[in-house]
Amino acid sequence: MNLPKEVTIIEVGPRDGLQNEKNLISTEDKIAFISKLKSSGIKEMELTSFVSPKWVPQMKDANDIISACLDDNRNFVLAPNRKGIDLLYQTDCKAVAVFVGVSESFNKKNINKSTKESMEDLGPIITELKDKGYFVRACISTSFYCPFEGKVSSEDVVALCSQFVQFGVDELSVADTIGMATPQEAFFLFKSLKEAFPNTLLTAHFHDTRGMALANVFAALQAGVDRFDTSAGGLGGCPFAPGATGNVATEDVVFMLAQMGIETGIDLDKLVEAVKVIEPHLSRGIESKYFGLNT
Amino acid sequence: MNLPKEVTIIEVGPRDGLQNEKNLISTEDKIAFISKLKSSGIKEMELTSFVSPKWVPQMKDANDIISACLDDNRNFVLAPNRKGIDLLYQTDCKAVAVFVGVSESFNKKNINKSTKESMEDLGPIITELKDKGYFVRACISTSFYCPFEGKVSSEDVVALCSQFVQFGVDELSVADTIGMATPQEAFFLFKSLKEAFPNTLLTAHFHDTRGMALANVFAALQAGVDRFDTSAGGLGGCPFAPGATGNVATEDVVFMLAQMGIETGIDLDKLVEAVKVIEPHLSRGIESKYFGLNT
Repeated sequence: MNLPKEVTIIEVGPRDGLQNEKNLISTEDKIAFISKLKSSGIKEMELTSFVSPKWVPQMKDANDIISACLDDNRNFVLAPNRKGIDLLYQTDCKAVAVFVGVSESFNKKNINKSTKESMEDLGPIITELKDKGYFVRACISTSFYCPFEGKVSSEDVVALCSQFVQFGVDELSVADTIGMATPQEAFFLFKSLKEAFPNTLLTAHFHDTRGMALANVFAALQAGVDRFDTSAGGLGGCPFAPGATGNVATEDVVFMLAQMGIETGIDLDKLVEAVKVIEPHLSRGIESKYFGLNT
Repeated sequence: MNLPKEVTIIEVGPRDGLQNEKNLISTEDKIAFISKLKSSGIKEMELTSFVSPKWVPQMKDANDIISACLDDNRNFVLAPNRKGIDLLYQTDCKAVAVFVGVSESFNKKNINKSTKESMEDLGPIITELKDKGYFVRACISTSFYCPFEGKVSSEDVVALCSQFVQFGVDELSVADTIGMATPQEAFFLFKSLKEAFPNTLLTAHFHDTRGMALANVFAALQAGVDRFDTSAGGLGGCPFAPGATGNVATEDVVFMLAQMGIETGIDLDKLVEAVKVIEPHLSRGIESKYFGLNT
Protein backbone atom coordinates (compact mmCIF):
# COMPACT_ATOMS: atom_id res chain seq x y z
CA MET A 1 0.00 0.00 0.00
CA ASN A 2 1.86 2.97 -1.38
CA LEU A 3 0.55 6.06 0.43
CA PRO A 4 2.00 9.59 0.49
CA LYS A 5 4.35 10.28 3.41
CA GLU A 6 3.22 13.88 3.73
CA VAL A 7 -0.12 15.56 3.15
CA THR A 8 -1.02 19.22 2.74
CA ILE A 9 -4.21 20.36 4.43
CA ILE A 10 -6.05 23.27 2.84
CA GLU A 11 -8.19 24.70 5.63
CA VAL A 12 -11.50 25.93 4.22
CA GLY A 13 -13.34 26.67 7.49
CA PRO A 14 -13.01 30.48 7.44
CA ARG A 15 -14.47 30.66 3.92
CA ASP A 16 -16.39 27.54 2.89
CA GLY A 17 -17.30 26.85 6.51
CA LEU A 18 -18.35 30.27 7.74
CA GLN A 19 -19.99 31.20 4.43
CA ASN A 20 -22.75 28.78 5.38
CA GLU A 21 -23.05 29.85 9.02
CA LYS A 22 -26.33 31.57 9.92
CA ASN A 23 -24.99 33.68 12.78
CA LEU A 24 -23.16 36.74 11.57
CA ILE A 25 -19.67 36.33 13.05
CA SER A 26 -17.75 39.49 13.95
CA THR A 27 -14.62 40.29 11.99
CA GLU A 28 -12.67 40.20 15.24
CA ASP A 29 -13.85 36.65 16.02
CA LYS A 30 -13.02 35.48 12.50
CA ILE A 31 -9.53 36.93 12.76
CA ALA A 32 -9.00 35.22 16.13
CA PHE A 33 -10.16 31.92 14.57
CA ILE A 34 -7.88 32.28 11.55
CA SER A 35 -4.95 33.26 13.73
CA LYS A 36 -5.39 30.18 15.96
CA LEU A 37 -5.72 27.97 12.89
CA LYS A 38 -2.49 29.34 11.50
CA SER A 39 -0.72 28.82 14.80
CA SER A 40 -1.70 25.13 14.68
CA GLY A 41 0.54 24.72 11.65
CA ILE A 42 -1.94 25.13 8.78
CA LYS A 43 -0.07 26.51 5.78
CA GLU A 44 -2.80 26.86 3.15
CA MET A 45 -6.20 28.36 3.84
CA GLU A 46 -9.28 29.78 2.16
CA LEU A 47 -9.53 33.08 4.06
CA THR A 48 -12.68 34.67 2.70
CA SER A 49 -14.45 35.48 -0.54
CA PHE A 50 -15.47 38.43 -2.67
CA VAL A 51 -19.10 37.58 -3.21
CA SER A 52 -22.18 39.78 -3.15
CA PRO A 53 -22.76 41.03 0.42
CA LYS A 54 -26.43 40.98 -0.47
CA TRP A 55 -26.37 37.20 -0.97
CA VAL A 56 -23.65 36.31 1.51
CA PRO A 57 -23.48 39.00 4.22
CA GLN A 58 -21.10 36.78 6.23
CA MET A 59 -18.33 37.60 3.75
CA LYS A 60 -18.84 41.36 3.58
CA ASP A 61 -15.70 41.94 5.67
CA ALA A 62 -13.44 40.28 3.09
CA ASN A 63 -11.12 43.28 2.84
CA ASP A 64 -10.61 43.47 6.61
CA ILE A 65 -9.97 39.74 6.87
CA ILE A 66 -7.40 39.90 4.10
CA SER A 67 -5.64 42.91 5.60
CA ALA A 68 -5.44 41.29 9.00
CA CYS A 69 -4.58 37.74 8.01
CA LEU A 70 -2.28 37.74 4.98
CA ASP A 71 1.12 36.26 5.73
CA ASP A 72 3.83 34.35 3.88
CA ASN A 73 1.68 31.23 3.63
CA ARG A 74 -0.77 30.50 0.84
CA ASN A 75 -3.97 32.40 1.61
CA PHE A 76 -6.79 31.90 -0.87
CA VAL A 77 -9.60 34.30 -1.52
CA LEU A 78 -12.55 33.01 -3.51
CA ALA A 79 -13.63 35.28 -6.34
CA PRO A 80 -16.42 33.74 -8.41
CA ASN A 81 -16.58 36.37 -11.16
CA ARG A 82 -15.04 39.47 -12.75
CA LYS A 83 -16.40 41.73 -10.03
CA GLY A 84 -14.77 39.60 -7.32
CA ILE A 85 -11.51 39.47 -9.23
CA ASP A 86 -11.45 43.27 -9.53
CA LEU A 87 -11.93 43.57 -5.78
CA LEU A 88 -9.16 41.02 -5.25
CA TYR A 89 -6.78 43.12 -7.37
CA GLN A 90 -7.15 45.90 -4.83
CA THR A 91 -5.66 43.69 -2.11
CA ASP A 92 -2.26 42.13 -1.54
CA CYS A 93 -3.64 38.60 -1.83
CA LYS A 94 -1.88 36.60 -4.53
CA ALA A 95 -3.81 33.34 -4.45
CA VAL A 96 -7.31 33.09 -5.83
CA ALA A 97 -9.92 30.37 -5.93
CA VAL A 98 -12.47 30.24 -8.72
CA PHE A 99 -15.25 27.70 -8.97
CA VAL A 100 -17.63 25.92 -11.26
CA GLY A 101 -20.07 23.03 -10.98
CA VAL A 102 -19.71 20.08 -13.33
CA SER A 103 -23.46 19.66 -13.19
CA GLU A 104 -25.41 22.19 -15.24
CA SER A 105 -28.35 22.38 -12.81
CA PHE A 106 -26.04 22.94 -9.87
CA ASN A 107 -24.06 25.62 -11.65
CA LYS A 108 -27.30 27.35 -12.70
CA LYS A 109 -28.64 27.40 -9.13
CA ASN A 110 -25.31 28.54 -7.78
CA ILE A 111 -24.21 31.21 -10.23
CA ASN A 112 -27.08 31.43 -12.70
CA LYS A 113 -24.99 30.35 -15.67
CA SER A 114 -24.48 27.17 -17.60
CA THR A 115 -21.21 25.35 -16.91
CA LYS A 116 -20.09 26.23 -20.45
CA GLU A 117 -20.85 29.95 -19.89
CA SER A 118 -18.93 29.86 -16.60
CA MET A 119 -15.93 28.34 -18.32
CA GLU A 120 -16.09 30.92 -21.12
CA ASP A 121 -16.00 33.65 -18.48
CA LEU A 122 -13.23 32.01 -16.47
CA GLY A 123 -10.84 31.32 -19.37
CA PRO A 124 -9.73 34.95 -19.94
CA ILE A 125 -9.85 35.71 -16.20
CA ILE A 126 -7.47 32.83 -15.41
CA THR A 127 -5.13 33.82 -18.24
CA GLU A 128 -5.06 37.34 -16.85
CA LEU A 129 -4.47 36.10 -13.28
CA LYS A 130 -1.60 33.90 -14.42
CA ASP A 131 -0.09 36.80 -16.41
CA LYS A 132 -0.16 38.84 -13.21
CA GLY A 133 1.56 36.06 -11.28
CA TYR A 134 -1.36 34.81 -9.21
CA PHE A 135 -1.68 31.27 -7.87
CA VAL A 136 -4.98 29.98 -9.26
CA ARG A 137 -7.00 27.25 -7.63
CA ALA A 138 -9.98 25.85 -9.53
CA CYS A 139 -12.71 24.43 -7.28
CA ILE A 140 -14.80 21.89 -9.15
CA SER A 141 -18.14 21.23 -7.46
CA THR A 142 -20.49 18.25 -7.91
CA SER A 143 -17.69 16.09 -9.31
CA PHE A 144 -19.42 12.87 -8.25
CA TYR A 145 -23.11 13.55 -7.65
CA CYS A 146 -25.44 16.49 -8.18
CA PRO A 147 -28.37 17.06 -5.81
CA PHE A 148 -30.57 17.72 -8.81
CA GLU A 149 -29.18 15.46 -11.55
CA GLY A 150 -27.76 12.47 -9.65
CA LYS A 151 -24.58 10.71 -10.78
CA VAL A 152 -22.07 12.92 -12.61
CA SER A 153 -19.96 11.33 -15.34
CA SER A 154 -16.25 11.11 -14.57
CA GLU A 155 -15.55 11.91 -18.24
CA ASP A 156 -17.28 15.27 -17.72
CA VAL A 157 -15.08 15.94 -14.67
CA VAL A 158 -11.89 15.05 -16.51
CA ALA A 159 -12.95 17.20 -19.50
CA LEU A 160 -13.67 20.19 -17.26
CA CYS A 161 -10.38 19.76 -15.39
CA SER A 162 -8.62 19.53 -18.75
CA GLN A 163 -10.02 22.93 -19.72
CA PHE A 164 -8.81 24.40 -16.43
CA VAL A 165 -5.36 22.92 -16.96
CA GLN A 166 -5.29 24.46 -20.44
CA PHE A 167 -6.27 27.80 -18.89
CA GLY A 168 -3.16 27.39 -16.72
CA VAL A 169 -4.52 26.81 -13.21
CA ASP A 170 -2.07 25.71 -10.52
CA GLU A 171 -4.47 23.53 -8.59
CA LEU A 172 -7.59 21.47 -9.16
CA SER A 173 -9.75 21.03 -6.07
CA VAL A 174 -12.24 18.33 -6.93
CA ALA A 175 -15.27 18.13 -4.66
CA ASP A 176 -17.87 15.61 -3.63
CA THR A 177 -20.19 18.50 -2.82
CA ILE A 178 -23.07 16.48 -1.41
CA GLY A 179 -21.02 13.79 0.33
CA MET A 180 -22.36 10.96 -1.78
CA ALA A 181 -19.22 9.49 -3.38
CA THR A 182 -18.14 6.01 -2.36
CA PRO A 183 -14.46 5.29 -1.70
CA GLN A 184 -14.41 3.21 -4.87
CA GLU A 185 -15.64 6.18 -6.93
CA ALA A 186 -13.18 8.47 -5.15
CA PHE A 187 -10.31 6.11 -5.90
CA PHE A 188 -11.09 5.80 -9.59
CA LEU A 189 -11.80 9.47 -10.27
CA PHE A 190 -8.68 10.67 -8.45
CA LYS A 191 -6.57 7.98 -10.10
CA SER A 192 -7.79 9.17 -13.52
CA LEU A 193 -7.12 12.80 -12.61
CA LYS A 194 -3.64 12.02 -11.25
CA GLU A 195 -2.78 10.24 -14.49
CA ALA A 196 -4.34 12.89 -16.74
CA PHE A 197 -2.79 15.91 -15.01
CA PRO A 198 0.52 14.89 -13.46
CA ASN A 199 1.84 18.46 -13.38
CA THR A 200 -1.09 20.16 -11.67
CA LEU A 201 -1.68 20.12 -7.91
CA LEU A 202 -4.64 17.85 -7.22
CA THR A 203 -6.75 18.32 -4.10
CA ALA A 204 -9.66 16.22 -2.85
CA HIS A 205 -12.60 17.91 -1.15
CA PHE A 206 -14.98 15.62 0.74
CA HIS A 207 -18.12 16.12 2.80
CA ASP A 208 -19.11 13.76 5.60
CA THR A 209 -22.84 13.83 4.85
CA ARG A 210 -23.09 10.04 4.83
CA GLY A 211 -20.08 9.24 7.03
CA MET A 212 -17.92 8.28 4.07
CA ALA A 213 -15.50 11.23 4.13
CA LEU A 214 -12.60 9.48 5.87
CA ALA A 215 -13.13 6.40 3.71
CA ASN A 216 -12.85 8.70 0.71
CA VAL A 217 -9.72 10.34 2.10
CA PHE A 218 -8.20 6.88 2.46
CA ALA A 219 -9.25 5.99 -1.10
CA ALA A 220 -7.83 9.23 -2.49
CA LEU A 221 -4.54 8.64 -0.64
CA GLN A 222 -4.35 5.28 -2.39
CA ALA A 223 -4.84 7.08 -5.70
CA GLY A 224 -1.83 9.27 -4.84
CA VAL A 225 -3.65 12.40 -3.64
CA ASP A 226 -1.66 14.32 -1.06
CA ARG A 227 -3.77 17.47 -0.71
CA PHE A 228 -7.12 17.66 1.08
CA ASP A 229 -9.58 20.47 1.67
CA THR A 230 -10.88 20.19 5.22
CA SER A 231 -12.81 22.45 7.57
CA ALA A 232 -11.95 22.92 11.25
CA GLY A 233 -14.85 21.70 13.35
CA GLY A 234 -16.49 20.29 10.23
CA LEU A 235 -18.00 23.71 9.53
CA GLY A 236 -19.74 24.19 6.25
CA GLY A 237 -22.00 22.69 3.71
CA CYS A 238 -23.42 24.34 0.65
CA PRO A 239 -26.70 26.30 0.87
CA PHE A 240 -27.40 25.56 -2.79
CA ALA A 241 -26.85 21.82 -2.37
CA PRO A 242 -29.60 20.22 -0.25
CA GLY A 243 -28.18 17.74 2.26
CA ALA A 244 -24.61 18.86 1.73
CA THR A 245 -23.92 19.90 5.32
CA GLY A 246 -20.61 18.99 6.78
CA ASN A 247 -17.20 19.40 5.26
CA VAL A 248 -14.94 16.71 6.63
CA ALA A 249 -13.43 18.04 9.86
CA THR A 250 -9.77 19.04 9.74
CA GLU A 251 -9.13 17.49 13.16
CA ASP A 252 -10.62 14.12 12.15
CA VAL A 253 -8.51 14.01 8.98
CA VAL A 254 -5.34 15.14 10.76
CA PHE A 255 -5.90 12.58 13.52
CA MET A 256 -6.36 9.73 11.04
CA LEU A 257 -3.31 10.78 9.03
CA ALA A 258 -1.21 11.13 12.19
CA GLN A 259 -2.24 7.62 13.27
CA MET A 260 -1.21 6.40 9.83
CA GLY A 261 2.19 8.04 10.19
CA ILE A 262 1.43 10.62 7.52
CA GLU A 263 2.81 14.04 8.34
CA THR A 264 0.67 17.18 8.06
CA GLY A 265 2.69 19.53 10.26
CA ILE A 266 -0.47 20.35 12.22
CA ASP A 267 -0.70 20.25 16.02
CA LEU A 268 -4.00 18.65 17.04
CA ASP A 269 -4.16 20.32 20.45
CA LYS A 270 -3.79 23.74 18.87
CA LEU A 271 -6.35 22.84 16.22
CA VAL A 272 -8.85 22.01 18.98
CA GLU A 273 -8.06 25.39 20.56
CA ALA A 274 -8.90 27.06 17.24
CA VAL A 275 -12.26 25.29 17.05
CA LYS A 276 -12.95 26.37 20.65
CA VAL A 277 -12.45 29.98 19.58
CA ILE A 278 -15.19 29.84 16.94
CA GLU A 279 -17.56 27.35 18.64
CA PRO A 280 -19.41 29.83 20.93
CA HIS A 281 -20.31 32.03 17.97
CA LEU A 282 -21.88 29.33 15.81
CA SER A 283 -25.56 28.52 15.33
CA ARG A 284 -24.74 24.81 15.39
CA GLY A 285 -22.71 22.44 17.53
CA ILE A 286 -19.39 20.92 16.56
CA GLU A 287 -19.93 17.38 15.33
CA SER A 288 -16.36 16.28 14.71
CA LYS A 289 -15.36 13.12 16.52
CA TYR A 290 -11.92 14.34 17.57
CA PHE A 291 -13.30 17.54 19.06
CA GLY A 292 -15.99 15.60 20.95
CA LEU A 293 -13.44 13.19 22.39
CA ASN A 294 -10.90 15.85 23.32
CA THR A 295 -12.87 18.67 24.91
CA MET B 1 -9.73 -2.99 -7.09
CA ASN B 2 -10.91 -6.50 -6.37
CA LEU B 3 -13.76 -6.20 -3.87
CA PRO B 4 -16.29 -8.85 -2.82
CA LYS B 5 -19.55 -8.79 -4.83
CA GLU B 6 -21.65 -9.79 -1.81
CA VAL B 7 -21.31 -9.04 1.87
CA THR B 8 -22.94 -10.67 4.89
CA ILE B 9 -24.05 -8.34 7.66
CA ILE B 10 -24.09 -9.73 11.18
CA GLU B 11 -26.48 -7.48 13.09
CA VAL B 12 -25.27 -7.01 16.66
CA GLY B 13 -27.73 -4.32 17.79
CA PRO B 14 -30.03 -6.50 19.89
CA ARG B 15 -27.07 -7.90 21.87
CA ASP B 16 -23.94 -5.76 21.63
CA GLY B 17 -26.05 -2.65 21.12
CA LEU B 18 -28.73 -3.03 23.76
CA GLN B 19 -26.33 -4.58 26.28
CA ASN B 20 -24.88 -1.11 26.69
CA GLU B 21 -28.19 0.76 26.78
CA LYS B 22 -29.02 2.37 30.13
CA ASN B 23 -32.81 2.24 29.80
CA LEU B 24 -34.21 -1.19 30.55
CA ILE B 25 -36.01 -2.15 27.33
CA SER B 26 -39.06 -4.37 27.62
CA THR B 27 -38.88 -7.87 26.15
CA GLU B 28 -41.81 -6.98 23.91
CA ASP B 29 -40.00 -3.97 22.47
CA LYS B 30 -36.83 -6.00 21.88
CA ILE B 31 -38.81 -8.67 20.07
CA ALA B 32 -40.49 -6.02 17.90
CA PHE B 33 -37.04 -4.57 17.07
CA ILE B 34 -35.58 -7.97 16.21
CA SER B 35 -38.60 -8.88 14.13
CA LYS B 36 -38.33 -5.66 12.08
CA LEU B 37 -34.60 -6.20 11.64
CA LYS B 38 -35.21 -9.69 10.33
CA SER B 39 -37.86 -8.44 7.95
CA SER B 40 -35.33 -6.01 6.47
CA GLY B 41 -33.38 -8.99 5.17
CA ILE B 42 -30.80 -9.49 7.92
CA LYS B 43 -29.83 -13.17 7.99
CA GLU B 44 -27.32 -13.32 10.86
CA MET B 45 -27.83 -11.66 14.20
CA GLU B 46 -26.60 -11.60 17.78
CA LEU B 47 -29.94 -12.01 19.57
CA THR B 48 -29.02 -11.79 23.24
CA SER B 49 -26.56 -13.15 25.79
CA PHE B 50 -26.44 -15.38 28.83
CA VAL B 51 -24.55 -13.11 31.18
CA SER B 52 -25.10 -12.39 34.86
CA PRO B 53 -28.41 -10.50 35.28
CA LYS B 54 -26.73 -8.83 38.25
CA TRP B 55 -24.12 -7.22 35.98
CA VAL B 56 -26.20 -6.85 32.84
CA PRO B 57 -29.90 -6.66 33.77
CA GLN B 58 -30.72 -5.70 30.16
CA MET B 59 -30.06 -9.30 29.09
CA LYS B 60 -32.03 -11.05 31.82
CA ASP B 61 -34.80 -11.95 29.35
CA ALA B 62 -32.44 -14.01 27.17
CA ASN B 63 -34.66 -17.10 27.31
CA ASP B 64 -37.76 -15.20 26.25
CA ILE B 65 -35.91 -13.49 23.40
CA ILE B 66 -34.57 -16.79 22.14
CA SER B 67 -37.98 -18.48 22.35
CA ALA B 68 -39.65 -15.66 20.46
CA CYS B 69 -36.99 -14.94 17.84
CA LEU B 70 -35.32 -18.16 16.76
CA ASP B 71 -35.90 -18.96 13.10
CA ASP B 72 -34.08 -20.71 10.27
CA ASN B 73 -31.48 -17.97 10.03
CA ARG B 74 -28.26 -17.84 12.05
CA ASN B 75 -29.13 -16.43 15.47
CA PHE B 76 -26.22 -16.06 17.85
CA VAL B 77 -26.40 -16.02 21.60
CA LEU B 78 -23.34 -14.81 23.48
CA ALA B 79 -22.26 -17.09 26.30
CA PRO B 80 -19.05 -15.93 27.93
CA ASN B 81 -18.48 -18.88 30.26
CA ARG B 82 -19.52 -22.39 31.33
CA LYS B 83 -22.57 -21.06 33.16
CA GLY B 84 -23.78 -19.26 30.02
CA ILE B 85 -23.12 -22.33 27.88
CA ASP B 86 -25.17 -24.51 30.23
CA LEU B 87 -28.07 -22.05 29.97
CA LEU B 88 -27.70 -22.07 26.19
CA TYR B 89 -27.96 -25.87 26.13
CA GLN B 90 -31.46 -25.53 27.59
CA THR B 91 -32.59 -23.57 24.52
CA ASP B 92 -33.01 -24.47 20.84
CA CYS B 93 -30.31 -21.98 19.78
CA LYS B 94 -27.54 -23.65 17.80
CA ALA B 95 -25.14 -20.75 17.24
CA VAL B 96 -23.02 -19.40 20.06
CA ALA B 97 -20.64 -16.49 20.38
CA VAL B 98 -17.75 -16.62 22.84
CA PHE B 99 -15.33 -13.80 23.44
CA VAL B 100 -11.90 -12.87 24.67
CA GLY B 101 -9.76 -9.74 24.67
CA VAL B 102 -6.33 -9.88 23.09
CA SER B 103 -5.18 -7.34 25.66
CA GLU B 104 -4.62 -8.75 29.13
CA SER B 105 -5.81 -5.62 30.95
CA PHE B 106 -8.98 -5.48 28.92
CA ASN B 107 -9.75 -9.14 29.44
CA LYS B 108 -9.13 -8.75 33.18
CA LYS B 109 -11.51 -5.79 33.46
CA ASN B 110 -14.12 -7.54 31.35
CA ILE B 111 -14.12 -11.11 32.68
CA ASN B 112 -11.62 -11.04 35.52
CA LYS B 113 -9.25 -13.51 33.91
CA SER B 114 -6.03 -13.34 31.98
CA THR B 115 -6.34 -13.92 28.24
CA LYS B 116 -4.48 -17.21 28.71
CA GLU B 117 -6.90 -18.35 31.43
CA SER B 118 -9.85 -17.43 29.21
CA MET B 119 -8.43 -19.47 26.36
CA GLU B 120 -7.79 -22.44 28.67
CA ASP B 121 -11.45 -22.29 29.71
CA LEU B 122 -12.73 -21.86 26.17
CA GLY B 123 -10.73 -24.72 24.57
CA PRO B 124 -12.77 -27.58 26.06
CA ILE B 125 -16.03 -25.61 25.82
CA ILE B 126 -15.55 -25.06 22.09
CA THR B 127 -14.60 -28.72 21.52
CA GLU B 128 -17.79 -29.72 23.32
CA LEU B 129 -19.90 -27.22 21.34
CA LYS B 130 -18.49 -28.49 18.06
CA ASP B 131 -19.12 -32.12 19.12
CA LYS B 132 -22.73 -31.16 19.76
CA GLY B 133 -23.00 -29.56 16.32
CA TYR B 134 -23.06 -25.89 17.33
CA PHE B 135 -21.87 -23.05 15.10
CA VAL B 136 -19.18 -21.26 17.11
CA ARG B 137 -18.26 -17.65 16.61
CA ALA B 138 -15.19 -16.31 18.43
CA CYS B 139 -15.35 -12.58 19.15
CA ILE B 140 -11.86 -11.17 19.58
CA SER B 141 -11.87 -7.80 21.35
CA THR B 142 -9.15 -5.14 21.40
CA SER B 143 -7.53 -6.53 18.24
CA PHE B 144 -5.96 -3.19 17.37
CA TYR B 145 -5.85 -0.98 20.45
CA CYS B 146 -6.59 -1.45 24.14
CA PRO B 147 -7.96 1.46 26.19
CA PHE B 148 -5.47 0.58 28.94
CA GLU B 149 -2.43 -0.74 27.07
CA GLY B 150 -2.46 1.12 23.75
CA LYS B 151 -1.40 -0.54 20.49
CA VAL B 152 -1.97 -4.29 20.34
CA SER B 153 0.48 -6.40 18.35
CA SER B 154 -0.96 -8.03 15.23
CA GLU B 155 1.16 -11.11 15.99
CA ASP B 156 -0.77 -11.51 19.25
CA VAL B 157 -4.05 -11.28 17.33
CA VAL B 158 -2.97 -13.86 14.77
CA ALA B 159 -1.71 -16.18 17.55
CA LEU B 160 -4.99 -15.94 19.44
CA CYS B 161 -7.01 -16.52 16.26
CA SER B 162 -4.80 -19.50 15.51
CA GLN B 163 -5.71 -21.04 18.88
CA PHE B 164 -9.40 -20.50 18.15
CA VAL B 165 -9.03 -22.11 14.73
CA GLN B 166 -7.34 -25.08 16.39
CA PHE B 167 -10.24 -25.28 18.84
CA GLY B 168 -12.46 -25.58 15.77
CA VAL B 169 -14.43 -22.32 15.68
CA ASP B 170 -16.45 -21.57 12.56
CA GLU B 171 -16.00 -17.81 12.63
CA LEU B 172 -13.50 -15.23 13.85
CA SER B 173 -15.04 -11.82 14.55
CA VAL B 174 -12.11 -9.48 14.97
CA ALA B 175 -12.90 -6.18 16.65
CA ASP B 176 -11.53 -2.70 16.86
CA THR B 177 -13.25 -2.32 20.22
CA ILE B 178 -12.32 1.32 20.85
CA GLY B 179 -12.60 2.58 17.26
CA MET B 180 -8.96 3.53 17.01
CA ALA B 181 -7.70 1.45 14.08
CA THR B 182 -6.70 3.24 10.90
CA PRO B 183 -7.74 1.83 7.53
CA GLN B 184 -4.10 0.93 6.91
CA GLU B 185 -3.98 -1.14 10.10
CA ALA B 186 -7.34 -2.71 9.25
CA PHE B 187 -6.13 -3.65 5.79
CA PHE B 188 -2.93 -5.27 6.99
CA LEU B 189 -4.41 -7.19 9.92
CA PHE B 190 -7.33 -8.55 7.90
CA LYS B 191 -5.04 -9.42 5.00
CA SER B 192 -2.83 -11.41 7.39
CA LEU B 193 -5.84 -13.15 8.91
CA LYS B 194 -7.34 -13.98 5.50
CA GLU B 195 -4.05 -15.54 4.46
CA ALA B 196 -3.50 -17.37 7.75
CA PHE B 197 -7.03 -18.78 8.07
CA PRO B 198 -8.45 -19.29 4.58
CA ASN B 199 -11.01 -21.86 5.75
CA THR B 200 -12.54 -19.96 8.65
CA LEU B 201 -15.21 -17.29 8.26
CA LEU B 202 -13.62 -13.92 8.97
CA THR B 203 -15.70 -10.99 10.17
CA ALA B 204 -14.63 -7.40 10.83
CA HIS B 205 -16.16 -5.49 13.73
CA PHE B 206 -15.60 -1.72 13.72
CA HIS B 207 -16.63 1.15 15.97
CA ASP B 208 -17.08 4.68 14.66
CA THR B 209 -15.59 6.39 17.70
CA ARG B 210 -13.25 8.49 15.56
CA GLY B 211 -15.23 8.49 12.32
CA MET B 212 -12.98 5.88 10.73
CA ALA B 213 -15.42 2.94 10.69
CA LEU B 214 -16.47 3.20 7.05
CA ALA B 215 -12.86 3.79 6.02
CA ASN B 216 -12.02 0.58 7.86
CA VAL B 217 -14.88 -1.28 6.19
CA PHE B 218 -13.48 -0.15 2.84
CA ALA B 219 -9.98 -1.26 3.86
CA ALA B 220 -11.23 -4.65 5.07
CA LEU B 221 -13.15 -5.15 1.81
CA GLN B 222 -9.87 -4.59 -0.01
CA ALA B 223 -8.30 -7.27 2.19
CA GLY B 224 -11.04 -9.65 1.05
CA VAL B 225 -13.33 -9.46 4.09
CA ASP B 226 -16.98 -10.06 3.19
CA ARG B 227 -18.56 -10.26 6.66
CA PHE B 228 -19.15 -7.26 8.93
CA ASP B 229 -20.62 -6.89 12.41
CA THR B 230 -22.79 -3.79 12.44
CA SER B 231 -25.40 -2.37 14.78
CA ALA B 232 -28.71 -0.88 13.62
CA GLY B 233 -28.82 2.78 14.62
CA GLY B 234 -25.17 2.58 15.68
CA LEU B 235 -26.27 1.27 19.08
CA GLY B 236 -23.60 0.04 21.40
CA GLY B 237 -20.17 0.57 22.72
CA CYS B 238 -18.48 -1.30 25.51
CA PRO B 239 -18.95 -0.21 29.15
CA PHE B 240 -15.53 -1.65 30.01
CA ALA B 241 -13.78 0.23 27.20
CA PRO B 242 -13.72 3.99 27.85
CA GLY B 243 -14.52 5.95 24.70
CA ALA B 244 -15.73 2.92 22.80
CA THR B 245 -19.25 4.14 22.16
CA GLY B 246 -20.69 3.57 18.78
CA ASN B 247 -20.69 0.41 16.75
CA VAL B 248 -20.72 1.31 13.09
CA ALA B 249 -24.36 1.70 12.05
CA THR B 250 -25.83 -1.07 9.91
CA GLU B 251 -27.68 1.43 7.73
CA ASP B 252 -24.52 3.45 7.02
CA VAL B 253 -22.59 0.32 6.03
CA VAL B 254 -25.45 -1.06 3.94
CA PHE B 255 -25.88 2.30 2.20
CA MET B 256 -22.18 2.53 1.33
CA LEU B 257 -22.08 -1.06 0.10
CA ALA B 258 -25.24 -0.56 -1.97
CA GLN B 259 -23.71 2.54 -3.56
CA MET B 260 -20.64 0.44 -4.36
CA GLY B 261 -22.80 -2.20 -6.02
CA ILE B 262 -22.09 -4.73 -3.26
CA GLU B 263 -25.12 -6.82 -2.41
CA THR B 264 -26.22 -7.37 1.22
CA GLY B 265 -29.82 -8.42 0.64
CA ILE B 266 -30.95 -5.76 3.12
CA ASP B 267 -33.72 -3.27 2.40
CA LEU B 268 -32.66 0.16 3.70
CA ASP B 269 -36.22 1.47 4.11
CA LYS B 270 -37.15 -1.48 6.27
CA LEU B 271 -33.91 -1.11 8.23
CA VAL B 272 -34.86 2.48 9.04
CA GLU B 273 -38.28 1.23 10.17
CA ALA B 274 -36.52 -1.17 12.55
CA VAL B 275 -34.45 1.64 14.05
CA LYS B 276 -37.63 3.70 14.47
CA VAL B 277 -39.10 0.87 16.53
CA ILE B 278 -36.28 0.95 19.09
CA GLU B 279 -35.47 4.69 19.00
CA PRO B 280 -38.21 5.90 21.43
CA HIS B 281 -37.02 3.49 24.11
CA LEU B 282 -33.36 4.51 24.10
CA SER B 283 -31.54 6.81 26.50
CA ARG B 284 -29.60 8.29 23.59
CA GLY B 285 -30.36 9.63 20.13
CA ILE B 286 -29.59 7.85 16.89
CA GLU B 287 -26.40 9.24 15.38
CA SER B 288 -26.23 7.32 12.15
CA LYS B 289 -25.98 9.47 9.05
CA TYR B 290 -28.41 7.44 6.97
CA PHE B 291 -31.08 7.52 9.66
CA GLY B 292 -30.67 11.27 10.10
CA LEU B 293 -30.99 11.89 6.36
CA ASN B 294 -33.95 9.56 5.86
CA THR B 295 -36.33 10.24 8.74
